[in-house]
Amino acid sequence: MTVLGCGAAAPTPYFLTTSQLVNIHDQLILIDCGEATQVTLRKSRDKFQKIKTILISHMHGDHTLGLPGLIASMNLLGRNTALNIYGPEELEEMVKKVLHLTRTHIEFNVYFHKLNTEEKTTVLETESYVVESFPTKHRIPTCGFVISEKERCYTLKPNIRKKYRLTHLEIQKLKRGEDVYRGEEIIKNSGCCSPPMETRSYAYAADSAYSPKVIDAVKGCSLLYHEATFESKDVDIAKKTQHSTSKDAARVAIQANVGQLLLGHYSNRYSDLSNLLSESQEVFLNSSLSVEGKTYSIE
Amino acid sequence: MTVLGCGAAAPTPYFLTTSQLVNIHDQLILIDCGEATQVTLRKSRDKFQKIKTILISHMHGDHTLGLPGLIASMNLLGRNTALNIYGPEELEEMVKKVLHLTRTHIEFNVYFHKLNTEEKTTVLETESYVVESFPTKHRIPTCGFVISEKERCYTLKPNIRKKYRLTHLEIQKLKRGEDVYRGEEIIKNSGCCSPPMETRSYAYAADSAYSPKVIDAVKGCSLLYHEATFESKDVDIAKKTQHSTSKDAARVAIQANVGQLLLGHYSNRYSDLSNLLSESQEVFLNSSLSVEGKTYSIE
Repeated sequence: MTVLGCGAAAPTPYFLTTSQLVNIHDQLILIDCGEATQVTLRKSRDKFQKIKTILISHMHGDHTLGLPGLIASMNLLGRNTALNIYGPEELEEMVKKVLHLTRTHIEFNVYFHKLNTEEKTTVLETESYVVESFPTKHRIPTCGFVISEKERCYTLKPNIRKKYRLTHLEIQKLKRGEDVYRGEEIIKNSGCCSPPMETRSYAYAADSAYSPKVIDAVKGCSLLYHEATFESKDVDIAKKTQHSTSKDAARVAIQANVGQLLLGHYSNRYSDLSNLLSESQEVFLNSSLSVEGKTYSIE
Repeated sequence: MTVLGCGAAAPTPYFLTTSQLVNIHDQLILIDCGEATQVTLRKSRDKFQKIKTILISHMHGDHTLGLPGLIASMNLLGRNTALNIYGPEELEEMVKKVLHLTRTHIEFNVYFHKLNTEEKTTVLETESYVVESFPTKHRIPTCGFVISEKERCYTLKPNIRKKYRLTHLEIQKLKRGEDVYRGEEIIKNSGCCSPPMETRSYAYAADSAYSPKVIDAVKGCSLLYHEATFESKDVDIAKKTQHSTSKDAARVAIQANVGQLLLGHYSNRYSDLSNLLSESQEVFLNSSLSVEGKTYSIE
């Protein structure tokens, strides 16, 4: 997961508004699309035409304003593959209105899918992974997302390929956990492969106040990005605006027993983020501050 | 005039889409507002709340997509002074729809003024300067702008303030070209001041194909920014899309007898802009390439 923007509400000299790019098994999924997301994608040389799926958590501008421009640029640069966008119902109206009024004629298929903001729902399932949405607790209907691998394959031990001169098909079989039959000869999976590692999952919870529903939804995931807009001393503003303190985020992380917590969606009132981090680490040690441009891998 | 973005159509790793900030007599005017304009303004630490006037040339997204976010951020950061926006009729619909759907409640006054796309028109007049719009030649109704000083004041010669211990009111009189009466004593303007320099004017022509109407409108201006999307070898695409080559821009500059020409709105097909410049300079020597972040002063 690469953080493209991790500031709250409005861009600052230091942070852009929210967007993330997730690479799962070489498939690119964009989560949220604040203004200038396409600028960052272009500068980072990520192949933005490879994005097939966009997940939009809610309608606030710091999560949506970059979407019309991104679609327009995909079109201008010759895209001809379909784009699937999962988000709030009004998103389609906004994007289509802007494209219409800016005289942008999109020549590839864009499909809008309305998210369920009432309960956890599978929004997308492929051969190798599943994307689910779940409701968070915010001022307006908002969803978080969990992206999970279905299963990981067996890993070939060193030199096995060469030793048996394995064909591509035979490698696929072994990776699936099967044995390979060559007439009378059997190449046993157990002798060639290490068993699959645990499957990995990534959960995204922004924007949200502290919520038991979020804890249920992200239970046991490998990496959780949870918004941490405020320090504890600003808990009243957090409550009023239905955002989290970094301590709230850490409580979610520990109660959901996640592997690792990444904080973000920083309020522009803090010039120094170290309090956000230390307050989170007091509750959940494996917390870190997300950094724009940085890629976080789950190994 | 500070160039905030000078790329055409879609952001590239090198250029943002169009926006400029003009400072005339300490008044800030924003011209066009491509995506990420507010990001650049925030990074450059320009006081974006001081912008009272926004001029939008036409509806294409590379000139408009940053506007809803800019207004939303002005609001979020506590603006309470009015904002006047001069642009195409549909601009108001777009901005209001986006702000409505992203649940943004603007708490300062935003006034939209429809531009005349048929003939040169005064859109704004203050004590010290005038803003006019004029039609350009593009695929959709588009305006360029001329911002002109009305008159410049007389300049006090060195040490005159001290010599006569001038009051603030007396300085104002002398700067207006008047004499100062102190009972019997007369402080003659001619002895204290140098006469006013020529008034300055800035013209902006993007987007536009080569057009005699533009030449008429920008006649004699001190600095002309004219779009120069294409090299001469791509003149067919320029014609088809109703854009200019840099040679077209230079022809406008020489025929309008402007002081200086600044090229911009570069197509993303050129990794090297030196041909754009040399082809322009063959026709009009005082041409230069606009650079993002750079401020161009008229002295």
